[in-house]
Amino acid sequence: MSTQRVIVVGASGYSGGVLARLLASHPHLTLHAATSDARAGKNVGRELGFRSDVCFVKNGEALRAAETCDVAFLATPAEVSASLGPELHAAGKTVVDLSGAFRLATGDDVRAHYKFSHPHEDRLGKTRYGLPEMFGAPEKGALVANPGCYPTPTLLGLGPLVKAGLVSPSGIVVDAKSGTTGAGRQSKEEHSFAEVAENLRAYKLLSHQHEPEISQKLAAYAGTAVTGLVFTPHLLPVRRGLLTTSYVRPVAGADTAKLEACLRDTYAGSLFVEIVAPEEVTLASVTGTNMCRLGVVSRGDVAIVVGAIDNLVKGAAGQALQNVNLALGFDEGCGLVGLQRSAA
Amino acid sequence: MSTQRVIVVGASGYSGGVLARLLASHPHLTLHAATSDARAGKNVGRELGFRSDVCFVKNGEALRAAETCDVAFLATPAEVSASLGPELHAAGKTVVDLSGAFRLATGDDVRAHYKFSHPHEDRLGKTRYGLPEMFGAPEKGALVANPGCYPTPTLLGLGPLVKAGLVSPSGIVVDAKSGTTGAGRQSKEEHSFAEVAENLRAYKLLSHQHEPEISQKLAAYAGTAVTGLVFTPHLLPVRRGLLTTSYVRPVAGADTAKLEACLRDTYAGSLFVEIVAPEEVTLASVTGTNMCRLGVVSRGDVAIVVGAIDNLVKGAAGQALQNVNLALGFDEGCGLVGLQRSAA
Amino acid sequence: MSTQRVIVVGASGYSGGVLARLLASHPHLTLHAATSDARAGKNVGRELGFRSDVCFVKNGEALRAAETCDVAFLATPAEVSASLGPELHAAGKTVVDLSGAFRLATGDDVRAHYKFSHPHEDRLGKTRYGLPEMFGAPEKGALVANPGCYPTPTLLGLGPLVKAGLVSPSGIVVDAKSGTTGAGRQSKEEHSFAEVAENLRAYKLLSHQHEPEISQKLAAYAGTAVTGLVFTPHLLPVRRGLLTTSYVRPVAGADTAKLEACLRDTYAGSLFVEIVAPEEVTLASVTGTNMCRLGVVSRGDVAIVVGAIDNLVKGAAGQALQNVNLALGFDEGCGLVGLQRSAA
Amino acid sequence: MSTQRVIVVGASGYSGGVLARLLASHPHLTLHAATSDARAGKNVGRELGFRSDVCFVKNGEALRAAETCDVAFLATPAEVSASLGPELHAAGKTVVDLSGAFRLATGDDVRAHYKFSHPHEDRLGKTRYGLPEMFGAPEKGALVANPGCYPTPTLLGLGPLVKAGLVSPSGIVVDAKSGTTGAGRQSKEEHSFAEVAENLRAYKLLSHQHEPEISQKLAAYAGTAVTGLVFTPHLLPVRRGLLTTSYVRPVAGADTAKLEACLRDTYAGSLFVEIVAPEEVTLASVTGTNMCRLGVVSRGDVAIVVGAIDNLVKGAAGQALQNVNLALGFDEGCGLVGLQRSAA
Repeated sequence: MSTQRVIVVGASGYSGGVLARLLASHPHLTLHAATSDARAGKNVGRELGFRSDVCFVKNGEALRAAETCDVAFLATPAEVSASLGPELHAAGKTVVDLSGAFRLATGDDVRAHYKFSHPHEDRLGKTRYGLPEMFGAPEKGALVANPGCYPTPTLLGLGPLVKAGLVSPSGIVVDAKSGTTGAGRQSKEEHSFAEVAENLRAYKLLSHQHEPEISQKLAAYAGTAVTGLVFTPHLLPVRRGLLTTSYVRPVAGADTAKLEACLRDTYAGSLFVEIVAPEEVTLASVTGTNMCRLGVVSRGDVAIVVGAIDNLVKGAAGQALQNVNLALGFDEGCGLVGLQRSAA
Repeated sequence: MSTQRVIVVGASGYSGGVLARLLASHPHLTLHAATSDARAGKNVGRELGFRSDVCFVKNGEALRAAETCDVAFLATPAEVSASLGPELHAAGKTVVDLSGAFRLATGDDVRAHYKFSHPHEDRLGKTRYGLPEMFGAPEKGALVANPGCYPTPTLLGLGPLVKAGLVSPSGIVVDAKSGTTGAGRQSKEEHSFAEVAENLRAYKLLSHQHEPEISQKLAAYAGTAVTGLVFTPHLLPVRRGLLTTSYVRPVAGADTAKLEACLRDTYAGSLFVEIVAPEEVTLASVTGTNMCRLGVVSRGDVAIVVGAIDNLVKGAAGQALQNVNLALGFDEGCGLVGLQRSAA
Repeated sequence: MSTQRVIVVGASGYSGGVLARLLASHPHLTLHAATSDARAGKNVGRELGFRSDVCFVKNGEALRAAETCDVAFLATPAEVSASLGPELHAAGKTVVDLSGAFRLATGDDVRAHYKFSHPHEDRLGKTRYGLPEMFGAPEKGALVANPGCYPTPTLLGLGPLVKAGLVSPSGIVVDAKSGTTGAGRQSKEEHSFAEVAENLRAYKLLSHQHEPEISQKLAAYAGTAVTGLVFTPHLLPVRRGLLTTSYVRPVAGADTAKLEACLRDTYAGSLFVEIVAPEEVTLASVTGTNMCRLGVVSRGDVAIVVGAIDNLVKGAAGQALQNVNLALGFDEGCGLVGLQRSAA
Repeated sequence: MSTQRVIVVGASGYSGGVLARLLASHPHLTLHAATSDARAGKNVGRELGFRSDVCFVKNGEALRAAETCDVAFLATPAEVSASLGPELHAAGKTVVDLSGAFRLATGDDVRAHYKFSHPHEDRLGKTRYGLPEMFGAPEKGALVANPGCYPTPTLLGLGPLVKAGLVSPSGIVVDAKSGTTGAGRQSKEEHSFAEVAENLRAYKLLSHQHEPEISQKLAAYAGTAVTGLVFTPHLLPVRRGLLTTSYVRPVAGADTAKLEACLRDTYAGSLFVEIVAPEEVTLASVTGTNMCRLGVVSRGDVAIVVGAIDNLVKGAAGQALQNVNLALGFDEGCGLVGLQRSAA
């Protein structure tokens, strides 16, 4: 199988960096170009910790640099991706956008949650959502909206249960906790070690942009209206890893065994989703890898679904690579199976 | 005012240690005796980091050592406290029990959640619950059940809202996160640094003993049945500090302003409860101190109440001391106001 | 004893904040004014976590605001302190400067290590160095150069041994490790949680400004030339706390017992220096307090002196307060004894 | 190339676990057996986080289980390895021992530092020391003493400089800092999160078993006596990673450029040693990988060599695998190049 050439646009953030390092070990994909205003002119490998002949070019040169590439990953702000994604797509590339530019249903959603007017509103609600375990494999040449970090384990856990009618689609509570890399590379005092260590806080209460993403995609997958979902993110004193604790109302008879069986059946052939006891859904068991761990327990009147991923792998770069593997016909786990977990 | 003599039974755990150090700076209380099997014979101050003439005696000598004391703090396992508390109380001491021995309503509750048969079932449901902002000041000579760490900020936040009829008492979700000292001094591998750092996990799902404590005390305070409450604790990679995120259903018209006003009114004269914006309810703002921070926000269909304390101070030793201050007629904040927070 | 009025200039940094909070509990000192450009107009207590009527004024108003004060603490950059310190001193205040402006011996030293031309070179080498255990109590009305964080435990450990002729003053190696608050309040990416956690690095090798401070003050105290001292700081993934490991050559016969006895004798009456086994010199035993722990061990050809402090307390704000307590004739430990350690 | 069968004896510790996970992705080696008393009967992959058909057997069955294996890794206590290593070696296996059983020169050394009488004293001082960048590739069928974690970066940094006569072999100071997994899987209170987080302490001052290992191997490599070396380990609040700061006396003219050139020349063709500026020698740049980063700086009278590795990879499991790759004629980096770093 011939090697495909890849560009990473915005490769100086955490997701872009993880992606570039994953590509360095991929047998069928070659990092051919990378952009970063801050690091323009510098060697990509030297900056990111592997061997490479590629040097960063300015973000403004992305389109030109992409000309000789087959695949483009956009690790750019949503407003940049909103323009650049369709341009690269029109040029025939397989494009995976790691931003939120194409995840929501309408231009109003984008205005409300990302604070800009989308230049391609017609694509909203139609762009392939790159959560392949639920929404299938993208096609070669597709523009793919890579899911948000919080929605990934939330949807993987809730989707099958709502779709099977085992839990109510209304009044779902999603309490989520993420490591600091979820906020990207930061030079704000509030993200300094002295402020984050030994600390915890909720943020963006009732106003996080991943709440409509979860509600809309859950509804789309389950084929039902999802109402009253509430989502609260918390900032954890860890670097990588994200855990979601979701509270749902099971229907009569939906005990732990039934809910767990539903999840096991759904992900029986999955490389990257593993069903375990809820207490075994830990950050340490997944960070460094592309795995999502899920666990569920029911009390009759309420059920709890716990999910965990590495926000930079299954929640960003790893899932993006999984989407390209599928789109180009490689093994789904190529470059992703065998990643060593960070914990000892 | 004359100095009162104090015994701390079980002073080698974290709560007992914090308590002994707080007593070392208290103007009206003197640490007169302390027990610990592991440290018997050793100087209390040398072991715990202050100056003292007291040496630890064995736990079995607690009753004898207490004879010359006015106040007894029990930082002992619930099964030990269940016997020892009434004995010391009968001997005329003011007793504050930091365990769960006297918090629940019935002997069945104790059997179910603490796994032993209570020798003084008649006292259950009648023992003073030492959350003074909600249940008032204990009397001199009382036996006081010091609240659990998780129930403290949960009840302080939810109690006034439920009592005022502003939120529904049914279907409450309490998602809680605590530092590792909440589990006490540990020599288990699962509490080793290598297992806890950069990690997060839920534990005791649907089975934590603080769930009935929260439900029963919330009902008692609000004068209403509390049904379907679910409580999930998570183990945080921090040493001290505990944050609870509670989800409730507000009644019509109960917007953020109304809920916040209810909390502000309730705690207007309180030394140790502070109402702030929910994003300002952080571990770093309270650890090291006896403060509880609360914040609330409402979306109409759901409201979120966030609370934070230091699990070893307002969640254990500090609250115990606050109870004794009140019982003996000292200033409520004696030895507790002016504690420096651990964060910079 | 009447209350003295205090101004803290530059109270929005970590040292200034800790100082303001310590003052809030001090029986003889009252925070009367505080400056901060970033927080001008805001209530000091609300920002820093205590109750106060004082509002921040701009740094430029420091001189005017200080008029009605008896004591001034300068938590300002060295270049600012270099001018402001003598002005406030000339106005009769007792001034403690927490910067490095007056610690080094000559204007060339300041140019080399702090990169500015000192406006009061004549004071260099003559200003009171505020390490009272070694250099005695400052006088009322003095201008005091509060020691650097790294020099504090290094000098307390090495000073008596060099002065007694028990170890060689040449070729000393000081390997030091500090928490991130030692670098002040930071909004740089390199101090973000994601970059500091689970990490360690040496910095400013052979070029840190505390190296000449250590060499000069060690020589001054011991009355001997100090040559070839090398100092390497490392950035620890902790918030507060600083540990120094110093390697020296003992003279013949200087075994562990002799070295330890020398330290014990020197600090026999000291409130804030404690001699323990080297393995007991830990950050956790001192953070939150004004204590310095020291330990020493000798192998005959080499001896190791380990020291630990809280960089923000004994290494900055606490020591500054200790200097003022002594200068104004209060108990040395006023507001400093009884501080609770942050560890459980 | 045919697949070689591997046994990991003692696979339930951290090093053994990392090794088993690395083997799971190795193209030419297959985990065929693994022993662990604690996990006997359980599936290896299920316990350690990968897919496998192998179940743990008891440690006592190691010899039998090894019969059908070509390669044995011993992640066992030194006293166990001392017997088991020669037995497996005599049976024709390629054996890599991760313990200290065969690293020191004499039986007296082992008695002094490992507290047991070595059953194979004749092998001491003759066993292949598995630091291939300095001591070359082991042969197939060899018994290899895999280096200690602390000696690895210390020797890689100091060896070439001492051998080239650029720095003095006497009076070397090695100040080292390691994450907690260096101490192995722990259930001691002193390794609990609450005791290690936000803390730092030196331990085993003047008595760590890695000190003679460093002195002896440095002397052997450089062909010179090494005298007066002192080594102090510190326990860092990180999970993985180890940094050494070594202080040496350069000969006249040995400036930074000369020292750095010596290291660059020595490791010009090395896959796993990288020479960078000392400030770039960080835990975050190496954890998760088999890399050792080194940096050096000279002041004329003193030079500082900084080194960093992941203690579980280049300091244990990764280096063990590198040794087997070389012994069996595979690419040196097989299964080790392309490991993703843990940091973002």
